[in-house]
Amino acid sequence: MRRVRYSVAMSLDGYIAGPNGESDWIVIDPDIDFNALAGAFDTILLGRKTYEVASQHEGGGGEMPGMQTYVFSRTLHPEDCPGVILSDNPKETLTALKKKPGKDMWLFGGGSLFRSLLDLGLVDAVEVAVIPVMLGGGLPFLPAPAKRAKLKLMNHRVYEKTGTVSLEYSVSSRARK
Amino acid sequence: MRRVRYSVAMSLDGYIAGPNGESDWIVIDPDIDFNALAGAFDTILLGRKTYEVASQHEGGGGEMPGMQTYVFSRTLHPEDCPGVILSDNPKETLTALKKKPGKDMWLFGGGSLFRSLLDLGLVDAVEVAVIPVMLGGGLPFLPAPAKRAKLKLMNHRVYEKTGTVSLEYSVSSRARK
Repeated sequence: MRRVRYSVAMSLDGYIAGPNGESDWIVIDPDIDFNALAGAFDTILLGRKTYEVASQHEGGGGEMPGMQTYVFSRTLHPEDCPGVILSDNPKETLTALKKKPGKDMWLFGGGSLFRSLLDLGLVDAVEVAVIPVMLGGGLPFLPAPAKRAKLKLMNHRVYEKTGTVSLEYSVSSRARK
Repeated sequence: MRRVRYSVAMSLDGYIAGPNGESDWIVIDPDIDFNALAGAFDTILLGRKTYEVASQHEGGGGEMPGMQTYVFSRTLHPEDCPGVILSDNPKETLTALKKKPGKDMWLFGGGSLFRSLLDLGLVDAVEVAVIPVMLGGGLPFLPAPAKRAKLKLMNHRVYEKTGTVSLEYSVSSRARK
């Protein structure tokens, strides 16, 4: 079945962006195969805030070639979000998507959407690239308060050139539905 | 020179204890050599809150055999802390200790003391055992706000039986004094 995978870069102290949304701390290791990563997905899942940031920066409304983007929000209107599919019901939308054939779904962020989907038992995997930095504040990987969730380490890789550590976990079945 | 090493177990989402101080999530991998770890140190550094919790639990005032314990606090009095050395000036105390011969110093916690010592440029290494769990809240590894600090990955090891990942970093010289 298609999986929902939360795949992000994280500082050692648990942030996915700096206090002002900075991503300048994310070192790009030349040995990371981003094409292979992106090729594993055909769907991107975004929360409202992440969508708004992404559509500002790229000017493209969060669209990525070869990907269908879903934005989860209770406040946005379809006319605000050209090129993406808007949903206010992640459970219904993702349960239906998981039953369809296709590649995995990239939960791109942010942390609030991750928390909501985790709470609904809809996240299958958590994959972090731990960047060798402590930010001291910012947008948390998983905002508190959230329920405790057990993980199982499935894979790891160390990228020696930058000291980035990739850790891949599956979410315990007790935290999934 | 003797190093100050912040060596702790951490959840993937960046906590060293649960919302109520829980440590029940820390799985002890049978392959971790705690004797070798403890043997690398002759000094333990504790913040006030961590000391108060430790002395309640063990009834022993935070003492550990073969170790000299230093507690950093501006409010505790020596008569409250039998068997440990109290300091209200971490910079002076640790600068002097670093010049003396001896083993490394174990910055045991908590996160607030880590933040203070990091800000003073007194932390040499950060060593985390990443436990495969997300706590969703608790005592942060590094409480916000703190200054950004670059790290360098020095060593790593995966403990397959439990999925614990040990990551050892040195603190960038720009963040040390």
